[in-house]
Amino acid sequence: MKQVVTFGEVMMRLSPPLHYRLTQANHLEVNYGGGEANVAAALAGLGQSAAHVTCFPATELGQAATQQFQRLGVDMRHTVFRGLRLGLYFLEVGASLRASKVVYDRAGSAFDKLDPADFNWDEILKNAGWLHWTGITPAISAAAAQATRDAIAAARRLGLTISADVNYRRNLWQYGQTAQEVMPELVAGCDVVFCSEHDADDLFHIKPTADVENSFADVAAQLRARFPQIKQVVTTRRQTQSASHERIKAVLYDGQFVETDFLNIAPVVDRIGGGDAFVAGFIHGSLTYADAQQALQFAIAASALKHTIHGDVNLVTAAEVEHVMQGNTSGRLVR
Amino acid sequence: MKQVVTFGEVMMRLSPPLHYRLTQANHLEVNYGGGEANVAAALAGLGQSAAHVTCFPATELGQAATQQFQRLGVDMRHTVFRGLRLGLYFLEVGASLRASKVVYDRAGSAFDKLDPADFNWDEILKNAGWLHWTGITPAISAAAAQATRDAIAAARRLGLTISADVNYRRNLWQYGQTAQEVMPELVAGCDVVFCSEHDADDLFHIKPTADVENSFADVAAQLRARFPQIKQVVTTRRQTQSASHERIKAVLYDGQFVETDFLNIAPVVDRIGGGDAFVAGFIHGSLTYADAQQALQFAIAASALKHTIHGDVNLVTAAEVEHVMQGNTSGRLVR
Amino acid sequence: MKQVVTFGEVMMRLSPPLHYRLTQANHLEVNYGGGEANVAAALAGLGQSAAHVTCFPATELGQAATQQFQRLGVDMRHTVFRGLRLGLYFLEVGASLRASKVVYDRAGSAFDKLDPADFNWDEILKNAGWLHWTGITPAISAAAAQATRDAIAAARRLGLTISADVNYRRNLWQYGQTAQEVMPELVAGCDVVFCSEHDADDLFHIKPTADVENSFADVAAQLRARFPQIKQVVTTRRQTQSASHERIKAVLYDGQFVETDFLNIAPVVDRIGGGDAFVAGFIHGSLTYADAQQALQFAIAASALKHTIHGDVNLVTAAEVEHVMQGNTSGRLVR
Amino acid sequence: MKQVVTFGEVMMRLSPPLHYRLTQANHLEVNYGGGEANVAAALAGLGQSAAHVTCFPATELGQAATQQFQRLGVDMRHTVFRGLRLGLYFLEVGASLRASKVVYDRAGSAFDKLDPADFNWDEILKNAGWLHWTGITPAISAAAAQATRDAIAAARRLGLTISADVNYRRNLWQYGQTAQEVMPELVAGCDVVFCSEHDADDLFHIKPTADVENSFADVAAQLRARFPQIKQVVTTRRQTQSASHERIKAVLYDGQFVETDFLNIAPVVDRIGGGDAFVAGFIHGSLTYADAQQALQFAIAASALKHTIHGDVNLVTAAEVEHVMQGNTSGRLVR
Amino acid sequence: MKQVVTFGEVMMRLSPPLHYRLTQANHLEVNYGGGEANVAAALAGLGQSAAHVTCFPATELGQAATQQFQRLGVDMRHTVFRGLRLGLYFLEVGASLRASKVVYDRAGSAFDKLDPADFNWDEILKNAGWLHWTGITPAISAAAAQATRDAIAAARRLGLTISADVNYRRNLWQYGQTAQEVMPELVAGCDVVFCSEHDADDLFHIKPTADVENSFADVAAQLRARFPQIKQVVTTRRQTQSASHERIKAVLYDGQFVETDFLNIAPVVDRIGGGDAFVAGFIHGSLTYADAQQALQFAIAASALKHTIHGDVNLVTAAEVEHVMQGNTSGRLVR
Amino acid sequence: MKQVVTFGEVMMRLSPPLHYRLTQANHLEVNYGGGEANVAAALAGLGQSAAHVTCFPATELGQAATQQFQRLGVDMRHTVFRGLRLGLYFLEVGASLRASKVVYDRAGSAFDKLDPADFNWDEILKNAGWLHWTGITPAISAAAAQATRDAIAAARRLGLTISADVNYRRNLWQYGQTAQEVMPELVAGCDVVFCSEHDADDLFHIKPTADVENSFADVAAQLRARFPQIKQVVTTRRQTQSASHERIKAVLYDGQFVETDFLNIAPVVDRIGGGDAFVAGFIHGSLTYADAQQALQFAIAASALKHTIHGDVNLVTAAEVEHVMQGNTSGRLVR
Repeated sequence: MKQVVTFGEVMMRLSPPLHYRLTQANHLEVNYGGGEANVAAALAGLGQSAAHVTCFPATELGQAATQQFQRLGVDMRHTVFRGLRLGLYFLEVGASLRASKVVYDRAGSAFDKLDPADFNWDEILKNAGWLHWTGITPAISAAAAQATRDAIAAARRLGLTISADVNYRRNLWQYGQTAQEVMPELVAGCDVVFCSEHDADDLFHIKPTADVENSFADVAAQLRARFPQIKQVVTTRRQTQSASHERIKAVLYDGQFVETDFLNIAPVVDRIGGGDAFVAGFIHGSLTYADAQQALQFAIAASALKHTIHGDVNLVTAAEVEHVMQGNTSGRLVR
Repeated sequence: MKQVVTFGEVMMRLSPPLHYRLTQANHLEVNYGGGEANVAAALAGLGQSAAHVTCFPATELGQAATQQFQRLGVDMRHTVFRGLRLGLYFLEVGASLRASKVVYDRAGSAFDKLDPADFNWDEILKNAGWLHWTGITPAISAAAAQATRDAIAAARRLGLTISADVNYRRNLWQYGQTAQEVMPELVAGCDVVFCSEHDADDLFHIKPTADVENSFADVAAQLRARFPQIKQVVTTRRQTQSASHERIKAVLYDGQFVETDFLNIAPVVDRIGGGDAFVAGFIHGSLTYADAQQALQFAIAASALKHTIHGDVNLVTAAEVEHVMQGNTSGRLVR
Repeated sequence: MKQVVTFGEVMMRLSPPLHYRLTQANHLEVNYGGGEANVAAALAGLGQSAAHVTCFPATELGQAATQQFQRLGVDMRHTVFRGLRLGLYFLEVGASLRASKVVYDRAGSAFDKLDPADFNWDEILKNAGWLHWTGITPAISAAAAQATRDAIAAARRLGLTISADVNYRRNLWQYGQTAQEVMPELVAGCDVVFCSEHDADDLFHIKPTADVENSFADVAAQLRARFPQIKQVVTTRRQTQSASHERIKAVLYDGQFVETDFLNIAPVVDRIGGGDAFVAGFIHGSLTYADAQQALQFAIAASALKHTIHGDVNLVTAAEVEHVMQGNTSGRLVR
Repeated sequence: MKQVVTFGEVMMRLSPPLHYRLTQANHLEVNYGGGEANVAAALAGLGQSAAHVTCFPATELGQAATQQFQRLGVDMRHTVFRGLRLGLYFLEVGASLRASKVVYDRAGSAFDKLDPADFNWDEILKNAGWLHWTGITPAISAAAAQATRDAIAAARRLGLTISADVNYRRNLWQYGQTAQEVMPELVAGCDVVFCSEHDADDLFHIKPTADVENSFADVAAQLRARFPQIKQVVTTRRQTQSASHERIKAVLYDGQFVETDFLNIAPVVDRIGGGDAFVAGFIHGSLTYADAQQALQFAIAASALKHTIHGDVNLVTAAEVEHVMQGNTSGRLVR
Repeated sequence: MKQVVTFGEVMMRLSPPLHYRLTQANHLEVNYGGGEANVAAALAGLGQSAAHVTCFPATELGQAATQQFQRLGVDMRHTVFRGLRLGLYFLEVGASLRASKVVYDRAGSAFDKLDPADFNWDEILKNAGWLHWTGITPAISAAAAQATRDAIAAARRLGLTISADVNYRRNLWQYGQTAQEVMPELVAGCDVVFCSEHDADDLFHIKPTADVENSFADVAAQLRARFPQIKQVVTTRRQTQSASHERIKAVLYDGQFVETDFLNIAPVVDRIGGGDAFVAGFIHGSLTYADAQQALQFAIAASALKHTIHGDVNLVTAAEVEHVMQGNTSGRLVR
Repeated sequence: MKQVVTFGEVMMRLSPPLHYRLTQANHLEVNYGGGEANVAAALAGLGQSAAHVTCFPATELGQAATQQFQRLGVDMRHTVFRGLRLGLYFLEVGASLRASKVVYDRAGSAFDKLDPADFNWDEILKNAGWLHWTGITPAISAAAAQATRDAIAAARRLGLTISADVNYRRNLWQYGQTAQEVMPELVAGCDVVFCSEHDADDLFHIKPTADVENSFADVAAQLRARFPQIKQVVTTRRQTQSASHERIKAVLYDGQFVETDFLNIAPVVDRIGGGDAFVAGFIHGSLTYADAQQALQFAIAASALKHTIHGDVNLVTAAEVEHVMQGNTSGRLVR
């Protein structure tokens, strides 16, 4: 089985229990997560071979973060230990009409200060079949952007499938280059792109053609025209009822428009990582099913299940996802 | 007040907190429960005199299980201490479209290996007015089946009311006899039988007559015809919306068809023991109310409340059940 | 900024975690709250200057209660330390159709036994612009009623705005005088009165005129006629779906009838203090906005948010309330 | 087996976890205990038949306290439910040179307000062989003192052995009579008295004779002379090194002076109830062993073990006490 | 009462429960502390008026840190909100021969990046009688050193007593100036200096004269000669037996040599802040007692008690310290 | 680096928090451990390459146990998934003179029922340099004994160093063969044997020669004579002061007698796995140091540190062990 390799920052997540506010917390629950590592860990749980590449400080915190992904079966042997601190984020879990809230404390992290020369991508990717990255990584620092560029170049050389979750977060881009300058070159090398209409507009100034009924298909077609390497454009639709109630579906365009039904999630246990679970589900689905419809249904079922799991990572088996994918959404007790 | 006596296995239940998965758990919450002991404990809470008969290992775990039911006012003096291990089950509590999941570890338990000769039923039942058993007990081992047979025979001799929750679980019957061979003789001795159409088909090959509108009444009438001792056939209907949302009602046939309205339960706090709470409610209702309709309404209200209680046992008073039974389902604060 | 001063008892609240029943609890969560102190603390969180006046025993418990409100920025320097015990209440948090339940243990508390002479109201109120009290305080003891009377008289002398949440609890009035005897004189001195039709009937025998469409406006008009100092009569409407699901709106009459839309709250995290959050929101709104409509919308948004916060006190900022007030009720993640 | 019956108040104990101070606590651990009920529960654990007689309010707290002792096998059927509140105490567990600290909140409890006529002692004691009471009970109220007097009288009539732990706490005696007035009559009816030289002086003005070497034997002999029913006078010696380190031994005088070696306890897990465990150990020892030396050694071993057990009650078996009694104090792992 | 004002960084402390290692932690306990704020909070607990001056980010974390010291009665109104992150440290609590371990993550904190111009020291100190600072503050950044310099200058102008805990931590001084360059000027302005022989050597190259018996007095005399403003030099002696067992005493030189006996602490609950508790005790003692011997005894008793308290801050009253100071070190239960 | 491979059962350990008794537990802490897997995990922490070979059921519990050792860096890829249940043990942690207590529930586990044919030892050991096993494994079942035999034979064939911790537990040997029949053949193939005089007598009937001063050296010499493959005989000495206080040292005979000083451990945090930590320390020491004295000192320091770590596994780095080995046992704070 060829490995799926992901690259990106892992942060320690500190969250008060239940729905407590940060100012009330006398203890904080510890999780470790990152948009790319979450994908790797979810894939390992689905039965894929997965590796994650990152940079940690050589402290107990870097060790703990490494161990957490090792535990989930992710190959962490490419971790570079360098730098001084682990990025952190504080998460307050909302409820009903009170939103969840994230306070980031990631500046100056080991990953932010990584040295691209530490990563020998040809070696790292030699047994891999798929590389996945997200738009968060090139947003962190010029060094992180360069390492992403290197990884994509090596992956292209080695003939891997490459996927990108473009995930544009305006306030992350602080190091002097804009997403609009950096991202097109990176996305140009990708086969599968997770990208909403909104991100397509922000990053690539691609807007839906007036009067077109299916704006996603229209935007995706433009993306494919602009970046001919792209085969599939994928995204999710959320009908957020409240912090405790979501409805989600997925859409895809690969020349054809494909969509799923909505899945209802109430209550939401933990929505962090729901998008990463979707990506992992789609990669697994693409490696498992012949047609895009099934891959997409697997992906949205995986994402829905993630919303019921504590922590950043989707801790479900392929059989559990398939069970939901087959329409078993009533949550009957399994004895 | 005449005692209600129940007979069956009690297991230690180990469950991760909140909605954590078993693989995430660094601590497990401890409860003790069993389909019959849950009935006895719920009845004690409703103000009935209740005893439970079982077999425990003479270890701290057997002692802890005994103490837990003593605490709830169940007469545990007939407990037989013999054997090596306490049966266990691990419970993962689902949410939304993720189902709860049970991993059993009950083989070789003290109850599985019980000696029927240890139970002097004439002595145990001498102050009793009602005996309740479930189809789980004769499924465990030939010895447990024999002890059930002995209990029913003694209860008949002594003129008790006997109820059975047939509760067919196919994968429990492993010791060489089938439920279809064992259960008819046992059920034949009972006055009240909790049995769904599905179980009636599986256990007794009783199917609804074609084109009959009320299939439950039809099946119940056939059951009463086959086993003339049976006076009432009772069961619940579940409309499971998700692991967090149930709607339940109850139906009964005693020559007449009786039913309740649906009760809505959202969120479900803990659905384990919801059926046992229903049985306890029905026994209490039958001992309290003159007509079956009220007994049934009491039973379904008790079951609904159980879904809001942590643990296997329905920790509610008769007054609390009556409050819901009278239509107070809005959960307004009681000061 | 002029201070808002509140006066009343603070109790220790002891509640089992999650939805456990009191008989199951092996530990109890500690909060401190009281109908008036909750208003002061919420106002401090909204950016107002707020002081609370109360009486505590000179024990670790009185110290802990003081510290808790100090923490939230409430000026506690007027606390009188005298008496023997801190009032307590035990709270069991219900779910779905099981109601939450409160067991009070407040008789003989330091506040119950306070000495009105300990409070120098002219000194206490010298920097204040607003005094708020509730109908719970004069219900506790003749001494507490006298202290309330003194506070209102001083506030009138000093030209403060005075608000009262009449909050009639029949079973609190045990010391020989009735609410009907005591309350009219106290309410007569107030500018803003939080009072439902039900309380208006119970306390002042004011009933809606037959065939009037808007019974609240009608009752409020009668109240204003009876007590000419009153400018605004305010109350909330609750559509309690279950212990886990509320819908709330607010109405006001100040000559004109004003109302808000309903806000939906599911799940309810902690409904204790929802009314106090409404009062604090209304006081803040009145001090902030020119028109009553906005003040009322701010108040109902604040109250809705309180239902999602653990503990008695509404721990939200003005910006967070304004966010909901502007219609952002979908609880989308804030990064 | 004849029952040992105890009589006295049971309080809810609320304590912060670990060594936290009360002002730091955001949750409090719940235990239930009382000097006499602790004896009954320890005796039940040692295999004796034990009943406790008390008065609880008919609330969830009274129910929880009842259930806790039922759990431990204590016969609670004589509980009187009357009154309004359960007595409470708050316990802060010290460490090293910081002392543990207790804040009582027991005034006005159901037991304080009990009606002596509610207790039919001839019925309660009809199967009993031993009655135990402590000096705390007659200190609480005139009613409690009267009920103690009634119990002793009935026990004398029925020929029971009666033991008293005189346990003088000066600040408890608030109802108008002094310990010096009340206690002599009560103690006069007892066979076994737990009484230190200090208490003998305070309560009975019995002082050691000058120049006598063994002051305890001297005082005990005077006590026996004053109260001829007394056969044995017993007490413990503590060498308190710190809140975390105790050394204890026991002495007895029944005409002969008997003593044990010191036992070393480090760390002390929970010293509340150490004296009650000693009393229970001595009662069990007296009912089990022919000579006072062995009873006393059993008692001190039981007390030492209690210091290692969380909560008020000594949760150990007779075999475990005997193991220590035989000199096994090194705490080697038992597999 | 004149205020004691302290100035310095406050960090969030994150520690695994009990003796767990950081890599094992799935939740971290939250405390807030800093060498100077700990002094202010301990002083407030001892009954002094105390203010702490610091710089926090305007996030939930800065708010939580502020609230925590407000809770303890520290005047936090001079807090400057500016900057991006709160400094953190991770604490692993050792046991026996395994040392406790601290992982710092404080670089780039709001305090590190403070602007000295934000602090109007003449205004801040206008009601103060004492200023306390430590050698940690000027070690953090040039800006922090400048603010310290400004504070000392203003305090001198206003005639305050100034104390300094020199507390040399070599690896903190990273911004381009050395402690040896910065500290002498700052210390020159102080009246009371907490300084060990070791720090005197490192910072000021003051070494004990050969063959002098009392090296501390010798070094202190040299310090007083070098910096004539200094009146008292104070330090503690530790005989660390293990991570769980300390013995501490204190020495002082003010022209006379003064010392205390050793106090024994076993077990150590939390040794962080033991030195700060000593400083707070000494300041309180100096403001309370006429002679240095008593102030020193109060200080060492306060420090010993801190070792038994969870968290950074010494949560004890003056009466509790005096109790130990009077020789009550056996930790007997206080009822 | 050559791998160290261990073989044996891993059990789920369930223990009440702190010093609670099993009958008090409402939650149980979860750890996973086994005498051999603990060695592998400790070695991985010390920087060695380590693999553990075992058999788990294909349930969530088997998955969780696998993940736990993966987390610690143990190569678990040789795990066989077969069978029905995971072995369990319940651990009650004693204190002072109350012993810790273990209740086993391991009969019928997946490892008990393993199939020796599932383990291809030549493949498993192909990159290994060392095989370690214990006397617990061949005690479990004939199949487990056979697999041990196969592993030793393969390791001999491949030229590995083989070590055995003979660890005789009489009550484990239940399957029809005795330790005395099975162990000699297995031990005959080993290079390093961990064996006390007591076990040498029980297993091999080797007793110290009368009047010999150094009985260990004498017995070890006899062992070496009987089994010529054995080069080193090693064991520890315990002076158990109480459940909370240990003193340990180590002795070795390899022709020469070697010993260490005693190390003092107070308090003991968790003594389970102290012997396994010693074995791991000795293997690491042997692979690191040239002489046996240093290996032995490293081993005893590692074992002492384990007593301060929660759980079965010694979570310490080589640097931390060396720090203690160099005499740093005072546990001073590491910043």
